[in-house]
Amino acid sequence: MERSTFPLNAWYAAAYDVEVRRVLLARRICNKPIVLYRKEDGTAAALADACWHRLVPLSLGRIEGDKVICGYHGLEFDDTGRCVYMPSQHTINPSACVKSYPIAEKHRFIWIWPGNPALADPALIPDLHWNDDPDWVADGKLIEVNCDYRLVVDNLMDLTHETFVHGTSIGDRAVAEAPFVATHNEKFAVVTRWMERIDPPPFWKKQYGKPGKVDRWQIIRFEAPCTIAIDVGVAAAGTGAPQGDRSRGVNGYVLNTITPATDRTCLYFWAFARNYDIRNQARTHELREGVAGVFSEDEAVLEAQQRAIETNPDHVFYNLNIDAGSMWARKLIDRMIDAESQPTRAAAE
Amino acid sequence: MERSTFPLNAWYAAAYDVEVRRVLLARRICNKPIVLYRKEDGTAAALADACWHRLVPLSLGRIEGDKVICGYHGLEFDDTGRCVYMPSQHTINPSACVKSYPIAEKHRFIWIWPGNPALADPALIPDLHWNDDPDWVADGKLIEVNCDYRLVVDNLMDLTHETFVHGTSIGDRAVAEAPFVATHNEKFAVVTRWMERIDPPPFWKKQYGKPGKVDRWQIIRFEAPCTIAIDVGVAAAGTGAPQGDRSRGVNGYVLNTITPATDRTCLYFWAFARNYDIRNQARTHELREGVAGVFSEDEAVLEAQQRAIETNPDHVFYNLNIDAGSMWARKLIDRMIDAESQPTRAAAE
Amino acid sequence: MERSTFPLNAWYAAAYDVEVRRVLLARRICNKPIVLYRKEDGTAAALADACWHRLVPLSLGRIEGDKVICGYHGLEFDDTGRCVYMPSQHTINPSACVKSYPIAEKHRFIWIWPGNPALADPALIPDLHWNDDPDWVADGKLIEVNCDYRLVVDNLMDLTHETFVHGTSIGDRAVAEAPFVATHNEKFAVVTRWMERIDPPPFWKKQYGKPGKVDRWQIIRFEAPCTIAIDVGVAAAGTGAPQGDRSRGVNGYVLNTITPATDRTCLYFWAFARNYDIRNQARTHELREGVAGVFSEDEAVLEAQQRAIETNPDHVFYNLNIDAGSMWARKLIDRMIDAESQPTRAAAE
Repeated sequence: MERSTFPLNAWYAAAYDVEVRRVLLARRICNKPIVLYRKEDGTAAALADACWHRLVPLSLGRIEGDKVICGYHGLEFDDTGRCVYMPSQHTINPSACVKSYPIAEKHRFIWIWPGNPALADPALIPDLHWNDDPDWVADGKLIEVNCDYRLVVDNLMDLTHETFVHGTSIGDRAVAEAPFVATHNEKFAVVTRWMERIDPPPFWKKQYGKPGKVDRWQIIRFEAPCTIAIDVGVAAAGTGAPQGDRSRGVNGYVLNTITPATDRTCLYFWAFARNYDIRNQARTHELREGVAGVFSEDEAVLEAQQRAIETNPDHVFYNLNIDAGSMWARKLIDRMIDAESQPTRAAAE
Repeated sequence: MERSTFPLNAWYAAAYDVEVRRVLLARRICNKPIVLYRKEDGTAAALADACWHRLVPLSLGRIEGDKVICGYHGLEFDDTGRCVYMPSQHTINPSACVKSYPIAEKHRFIWIWPGNPALADPALIPDLHWNDDPDWVADGKLIEVNCDYRLVVDNLMDLTHETFVHGTSIGDRAVAEAPFVATHNEKFAVVTRWMERIDPPPFWKKQYGKPGKVDRWQIIRFEAPCTIAIDVGVAAAGTGAPQGDRSRGVNGYVLNTITPATDRTCLYFWAFARNYDIRNQARTHELREGVAGVFSEDEAVLEAQQRAIETNPDHVFYNLNIDAGSMWARKLIDRMIDAESQPTRAAAE
Repeated sequence: MERSTFPLNAWYAAAYDVEVRRVLLARRICNKPIVLYRKEDGTAAALADACWHRLVPLSLGRIEGDKVICGYHGLEFDDTGRCVYMPSQHTINPSACVKSYPIAEKHRFIWIWPGNPALADPALIPDLHWNDDPDWVADGKLIEVNCDYRLVVDNLMDLTHETFVHGTSIGDRAVAEAPFVATHNEKFAVVTRWMERIDPPPFWKKQYGKPGKVDRWQIIRFEAPCTIAIDVGVAAAGTGAPQGDRSRGVNGYVLNTITPATDRTCLYFWAFARNYDIRNQARTHELREGVAGVFSEDEAVLEAQQRAIETNPDHVFYNLNIDAGSMWARKLIDRMIDAESQPTRAAAE
């Protein structure tokens, strides 16, 4: 069996909260077709998107109460996946069911657990609290990228690429040249880079709104297997930001969680959060579109990289110093995958 | 060798009669590229659509008399497939030929026999006589559906799907709930459903044209491997239609013959025939377009089902009571395929 | 290992000279991604189009001096392919490099040698001197054809197809019926056809510009593995053209060199050269577009042939008398491929 590219025992963002409504939403997650909807009580439900009878996607059908009705022969499934109606017969085959998935709603995302339901502990949902913290304002998008989700993780774990991919907005030579520190534990990998006493690049000059040199920071925190929160900002140079006093600066968080759709495509959910000027809706709008523009520059590179990898499946990659963060992220992902393939552990599904 | 999805020793509809003219028509039938045309005497001919010399499709060339001339180097083939001209040489390689196929014209279709020509008995052509019977008027279309032809057969053998797929026209709860009877013999499988004393669904209300309850019938006759004629109609409730007196009602036939193009695509020829108000050309036109709309609802479901099956090649399907008709149809198809793979029988080709 | 469809130890046209400038040009040649550019001194350079670090195409980056800078993390490569800069580190891994390819500019093409660089002798560049000879004027195009480059070679080595594919311009019955002579040596295969005392077809009638019968010639010279120069023209009938006196006629050359892009696609560079009325720019323009129209007729046939071959991978082809030239061309190609696969020879790469 080929090695999986992702663990199954993990919470993955399936949708933004507002995407899941009283209609059927089809998504592919970890190679599985999934149908999402909200029940009458407002909570979300997720079923396998393939009717037990003829495999027709349930998402082509409709909702009635908390049930999903197949659009072909009308079989009805409740939110646990049990079949509760079959046409032209009174007895229902007791084995008739579709898989249902543990689901949770937190930090403005609908999270799904594709693996062993017994292990689906809500305490394990990744921390993206800035996304609905009243002291912050955040806005973002979902983009579908045609690459292995791990290439997006690599991309975010090393921001020297800003210099070369995003030279007109957030990148400058300082990012590629400043030293950084990479640390990790069992679940997190962190890359910290301080660029002290620099001229801010265009994006930060605008956010900061004052003349003069700044101290700039990027603190990238990876939470296995695929969530990355990046603490970013600038403060007036020499006013103590590296030591913890950010009062003379502006602070944002780039929130990212990247869900494998298939082995070569992913759902990339991102948002930009800030704790300054938070009532200014125009700034929120402008930031969302500005960051979307930056990410579309990444998309082109990532999809080209994916195609090159597929053309050279046996290529062995070389790592640079800058890859320290992504190497740790990959190692933590691999440990999760390995843990699931241990025969003594509970099978993922 | 992988099991074939269709028998070769059978008559398959290759085209509507009017489609075959004094030009070259390319069709793929049972995984074979075929070129169809009419000869000077008006009868149809079918050759393999690949020149003996360089495999270039003959359909890119042209007709001269009864001959097909390759559009690349000008090799000429007569209607038996024998090469009768080669450029720049006087002697023709006696082995130079392309395959020709038995062909017949009946009930407004051009039928082709892809298997052993010695077995191509015109008496075996499926019965779709309503399509050119002077007491009936019929009109229809050809659609190309991206699914195994057997999924269309399944679809037609169980009309409970009308309730869920075609709820705005011909479907209502009565179809999904009325009992039915399934019978079969060596070549035919028949599913009979009577819905007595019901309110007619919108389609039949319009055809019937009178107020009041009706008795509605659907008598589905499958003729192996892929022709289905469905006797449909409604009559005033309690006037003896179930016993054979249809004089107080309206009667139609849904004629269907589905030709495998490849293992995952098919040519679906259908027509709707009626024996009432047969001089009314507007009604003919309206019925053709109305039924086309109904069938486009099926197409979406069938193509989604095909994609799901391809993603899950080892899926074992469960059957419901409503699948009795399609199970028999599948069994009759399988018998034909098995008969061809018997080493003691004449090889199909 | 599957047999290669082309030799690697050969010069292949990668681009027209004007296509290679101070920007990065991506091309696929012999299944390899290549990036082409001009250095500050005006000479061309060619590198593998995949960064040593993460395989991202270098063509997505930019040029600085003679160096190529990767558009992802900024690694810099000189024109020999050696990495001379890595972000955030002072020491450069000495193994960090991408492959560079021997390159040459001649007869208005940029030529690349994908095989063993030690064998890349500029004297082996195919002869297409008419393309920049002051006594001739030439103009042409690059087209990308979705077929094995050898199908284009076959096409050009037998011009009887003109009768059937190009009947409205250069083809007539004379081409398909006139005798021809095929000769060859270790590197060249030549097919000579004279059509004496014929009415010129439309194209030549216009070029010749006078009434009356002509002697027409086609002398096809194949230079292994994929260059074909065709000496074409007409002269007043009986004025000695077959004996060498072309003074009473017009003479052109159809120049063709076809580079394998992948095993099933190719870059087809062509030009039409003439030595009459050479100051007439309108005629040059008209000839280029006229010949482009002729070649687009070939494209349709060649791509249909490629699809048919892929559908019938085990098909054994039959040859006619007219295939003598292409059979020799194929034989010379095969010898080059065989020579590279000999274990005692220098490996191609």
